[in-house]
Amino acid sequence: MLRFECDYTEGCIPEILEAISKENHTQYPGYSTDAICDRARAKVKALCGRQDVDVHFLTGGTQANATVITAALRPHQGILAAQTGHISCHETGAIEATGHKVLALPSDTGRLSASQIEAFCAAHWNDETHEHQVQPAMVYLSHPAENGTLYTLEELTAIRAACDRWNLLLFVDGARLGYGLAAPVNDVSVADLARLTDVFYIGGTKVGALFGEAVVLCHPALKQDFRYLIKRQGGMLAKGWLLGLQFDVLLEDGRYVAIARRAVEQALRIRDAFRRKGCRFLIESWTNQQFPILDREQMQKLAGNYAYSVWEPVDADHTAVRFCTSWATTDAQVDQLIRDIESL
Amino acid sequence: MLRFECDYTEGCIPEILEAISKENHTQYPGYSTDAICDRARAKVKALCGRQDVDVHFLTGGTQANATVITAALRPHQGILAAQTGHISCHETGAIEATGHKVLALPSDTGRLSASQIEAFCAAHWNDETHEHQVQPAMVYLSHPAENGTLYTLEELTAIRAACDRWNLLLFVDGARLGYGLAAPVNDVSVADLARLTDVFYIGGTKVGALFGEAVVLCHPALKQDFRYLIKRQGGMLAKGWLLGLQFDVLLEDGRYVAIARRAVEQALRIRDAFRRKGCRFLIESWTNQQFPILDREQMQKLAGNYAYSVWEPVDADHTAVRFCTSWATTDAQVDQLIRDIESL
Amino acid sequence: MLRFECDYTEGCIPEILEAISKENHTQYPGYSTDAICDRARAKVKALCGRQDVDVHFLTGGTQANATVITAALRPHQGILAAQTGHISCHETGAIEATGHKVLALPSDTGRLSASQIEAFCAAHWNDETHEHQVQPAMVYLSHPAENGTLYTLEELTAIRAACDRWNLLLFVDGARLGYGLAAPVNDVSVADLARLTDVFYIGGTKVGALFGEAVVLCHPALKQDFRYLIKRQGGMLAKGWLLGLQFDVLLEDGRYVAIARRAVEQALRIRDAFRRKGCRFLIESWTNQQFPILDREQMQKLAGNYAYSVWEPVDADHTAVRFCTSWATTDAQVDQLIRDIESL
Amino acid sequence: MLRFECDYTEGCIPEILEAISKENHTQYPGYSTDAICDRARAKVKALCGRQDVDVHFLTGGTQANATVITAALRPHQGILAAQTGHISCHETGAIEATGHKVLALPSDTGRLSASQIEAFCAAHWNDETHEHQVQPAMVYLSHPAENGTLYTLEELTAIRAACDRWNLLLFVDGARLGYGLAAPVNDVSVADLARLTDVFYIGGTKVGALFGEAVVLCHPALKQDFRYLIKRQGGMLAKGWLLGLQFDVLLEDGRYVAIARRAVEQALRIRDAFRRKGCRFLIESWTNQQFPILDREQMQKLAGNYAYSVWEPVDADHTAVRFCTSWATTDAQVDQLIRDIESL
Repeated sequence: MLRFECDYTEGCIPEILEAISKENHTQYPGYSTDAICDRARAKVKALCGRQDVDVHFLTGGTQANATVITAALRPHQGILAAQTGHISCHETGAIEATGHKVLALPSDTGRLSASQIEAFCAAHWNDETHEHQVQPAMVYLSHPAENGTLYTLEELTAIRAACDRWNLLLFVDGARLGYGLAAPVNDVSVADLARLTDVFYIGGTKVGALFGEAVVLCHPALKQDFRYLIKRQGGMLAKGWLLGLQFDVLLEDGRYVAIARRAVEQALRIRDAFRRKGCRFLIESWTNQQFPILDREQMQKLAGNYAYSVWEPVDADHTAVRFCTSWATTDAQVDQLIRDIESL
Repeated sequence: MLRFECDYTEGCIPEILEAISKENHTQYPGYSTDAICDRARAKVKALCGRQDVDVHFLTGGTQANATVITAALRPHQGILAAQTGHISCHETGAIEATGHKVLALPSDTGRLSASQIEAFCAAHWNDETHEHQVQPAMVYLSHPAENGTLYTLEELTAIRAACDRWNLLLFVDGARLGYGLAAPVNDVSVADLARLTDVFYIGGTKVGALFGEAVVLCHPALKQDFRYLIKRQGGMLAKGWLLGLQFDVLLEDGRYVAIARRAVEQALRIRDAFRRKGCRFLIESWTNQQFPILDREQMQKLAGNYAYSVWEPVDADHTAVRFCTSWATTDAQVDQLIRDIESL
Repeated sequence: MLRFECDYTEGCIPEILEAISKENHTQYPGYSTDAICDRARAKVKALCGRQDVDVHFLTGGTQANATVITAALRPHQGILAAQTGHISCHETGAIEATGHKVLALPSDTGRLSASQIEAFCAAHWNDETHEHQVQPAMVYLSHPAENGTLYTLEELTAIRAACDRWNLLLFVDGARLGYGLAAPVNDVSVADLARLTDVFYIGGTKVGALFGEAVVLCHPALKQDFRYLIKRQGGMLAKGWLLGLQFDVLLEDGRYVAIARRAVEQALRIRDAFRRKGCRFLIESWTNQQFPILDREQMQKLAGNYAYSVWEPVDADHTAVRFCTSWATTDAQVDQLIRDIESL
Repeated sequence: MLRFECDYTEGCIPEILEAISKENHTQYPGYSTDAICDRARAKVKALCGRQDVDVHFLTGGTQANATVITAALRPHQGILAAQTGHISCHETGAIEATGHKVLALPSDTGRLSASQIEAFCAAHWNDETHEHQVQPAMVYLSHPAENGTLYTLEELTAIRAACDRWNLLLFVDGARLGYGLAAPVNDVSVADLARLTDVFYIGGTKVGALFGEAVVLCHPALKQDFRYLIKRQGGMLAKGWLLGLQFDVLLEDGRYVAIARRAVEQALRIRDAFRRKGCRFLIESWTNQQFPILDREQMQKLAGNYAYSVWEPVDADHTAVRFCTSWATTDAQVDQLIRDIESL
């Protein structure tokens, strides 16, 4: 059984394990106050092209999302997200656990648009009963989105403008950021995110690390006491140097994008194989997730040797499924899959 | 300016004020542990046709909704509601403040159907990632719904069956219950609610009381320690006898439905006037809320003398508005409004 | 049975009932946006000697405490209170329900001192693990305290200075404020509270109203969106004019202090009767609550005709009990009690 | 600088790194649904001497504490803990973030006693206002306690009996459990914990793992939907096999206690050195934490070469400090420290 159902089936890039082994018996102070974390923070800031951001390492995406949102919002405020956004449907209520409503907007594309955000805010503030409604105060985007698509720099710039008009903070979940940066069609850089957002994070768990996300705080108001909030929300690691070390290794010499690029290339090979077979796709994706539409027989045949995710039914006979690659995907694995696609 | 924008513009029925005046200098123990509350509880139980329910008096609807939901759900569980349900859009996040997600379902009718509930639960439990999603555990209905429409006994029975199949508690918000019971087309009694739901409440604030809701707990598991939860959620009144007294007066000799019936009759008179004028309606309502669709000129003309609610735009030139009557609406007020509708 | 166990056994001063009756059929917009509330707000501001405060009317003390605290604190922050403070032990966790820890300090007097506050904050900020502890950010005082005692203006001024030094907001719970203002030894005025605190409230429930508290926001940062928070925490009354009206009547021509003064005088008569009988007191109180120490026989004898609160055991044979008077206490009631004290 | 300030300054035992390296490129399903986790669960159950427990692996202690407590309590319930208990003072309010009050009891010994628990519960339930107080529903112990001391089996059995009498769940935090099991005076086994508690956890972070805690659910009511709650509270690791693997290695052939025993032996060597120097101790500890009382000069001398924790002032001139050993502490490190203690 080869696993393509998600992008976290293996451990980490070998360089990280080597680095852990090397540091394993060195003594470090706890909770990411060590020199390795500082070195990794410097690398993140360099990528951002800004020194005036704060960088924190959290153990995972749920903690990153919950901690950022609880840090940013007052109790009566909510966060706008696509209906399909991770915080909207795949956190088992971790956001609501902080007392905040996710204001879910329908989205055919899996992304939000500036005009949607504007329309929602206009409706809120024009409604005479707005004090009886959750106040929109932040926007959540995923880049890449949960369906593998990407915001363009133009779209992101328009969203930033909408946020400025309606006094909203902008938060970008970059759990799969590497795969976005490595996509052939992408025109958004880390520096763009550091310039356009109030907070975003660079995902490690899905892009080469054992675990961990690097949260970048751009807006000054979010910085105060953020470490208290990490601790409160359960995202503080005792041996915090482990987090810093992973990003230190990942961000060395362009390695983060390089490993992601290989994953994207493998994904596009898989895409092309499904295309050649005549399969339609749920959506056009240039990242490591591909969503071919299969019929029952095709699904059954592939299920014998491959784990993939069932995404959503398309019609009575067809279903969109998800095949993911990752930094760990090998040529041999993809070759085998392509052969089996070809013989569908 | 005559106010038809909601059903809580006046104080209370005179009999309640008389009763308060009579008891004002009697000493009662605090927090609804008094004899008046017990008398009112007995009347609620009689209406329910069951002695094995617990009855609690809370100060308002927000507290009733939040307290019931926090009492019923474990932290990872959510409550299904129509997108237009009160807990979904008009509580400023009071439900999320208890840590629970409102699982909002789209609804053209403002109501939920048994098949919608079934479909949602089937999707949840069939999804291999269901542990990453909020678990559906309760269903919230309003009777009448926020748009003035009613569940039939058949619909409610079907929803109960769906709840049984999917292990869901059923909660009915009866903030306007009187106006439902008094509607010509209604076939759901308080006893039906006591038989079919796990918890519901009888609204006082909008139906003749100064304030207060009578929560009826039918499911045994909800009863334990409910008073602790009322206190925690801020719904416990020091002078609790004030709440019991209001329901004692409202539920005397059928008064609750009688005062609501007059309000409904007034609402239907207003409906007929708009109809005669050729207005369409957003929805057919047989209760105290009516939703005629007006053009801009009509809106402007009426706005000079009447307060009404702007509900939702229908097209570029037309808007659905809401006119409410209440137990306090007089013939003279409605006569005047009808005259002005006729001269639109 | 005469009730002296608390100060909310009766309804309200007759003038309030008269005013409600008079306004009962007038139409008012909902949620305290009416003219009566504005009139009451103006009276509160006049008492405060400041126009630049915001005044909100909430239904009760639990909501006032929870709403103020959730409005003021970020998630990782806590509020200092005496171990015996109401938020510390008598809110069934309503404060923790907002996600905040009450940082309880031991207190022999039932009050906090500036030096206690300073010591706690110094310890927090000097501790190298302070990020792993709840951050002190607000101080909660009750005036009068739960044991009937009062802060002096000097003490309050010192606490303000401590708050300034440690960047703490100062919140005074005035649920029984009237009885404090009316105490012969009191030297703290409403204007002092408006000058020295960031937020305080004037209690109605225990001082002549049916229910309701007037929250005064002095610190600008607390004012923003406070109405959203009232709604979220369940303290928003649909017929909000009822709250404004009660304060409008209570604050007319010094009535608030006048009715409280009579209650205090009655309490001091009771105190003196116990004293003449040779009883000791748990604490010296100049307000409407008295805490005589009784032996078992005395307790039993009085329990036949009087409801009082059992406060705390003092030794194997003696118990401190609480007798409360209120605005409703009559000469005849106190005369009867004094006769029975004398014959103990 | 040698670090003795805590027990998490190094990475993990080498066998864990070897095992990770070996499995690093194997594909595993996510979220601890893999075969390695199952193998580790079987080892935990064997240690417990019970098959009817559920075992979950969480990323850290804060998540373990918050998740267990939120799973166990209804909203109005609280958890009893020593004032010095970790959840009481070192979680930055993570417990209150779940809406629950920590009911802190004073403790000279750092531990709770059965009689304290009984007294608290008796006081709660005998108080006529108990509905206005947080209801005690669970007891939290740490074994070893935060000050390095241990419960005896007799004490633990008495606490279990108190819990049964007052309907309390019993929760034991075993963040340092290994060091307790390895202590010469300990008479509590893992099987005893599995028999006497409703839930406990076996600490990995401080006892040989990179990170991770193994939560053992003994009470059936806690088991339902626990994985939803882990996800909601941020304790679910995408690459969950990493957690299972660490416990699989730690629990092999008694390794967990063996590595802890070496740490305890080193700690007792340090203890003896301070004793020989004539130092007093804050408390007698037989585990890996030692609390000698030093004067300023001693503190300053040691601070030059050693990191230790400042615990609490004892008198004007003396302070209790903490020296910790861990599985990673070497003979050479302790030899050096002892030499420097001897020359104080």
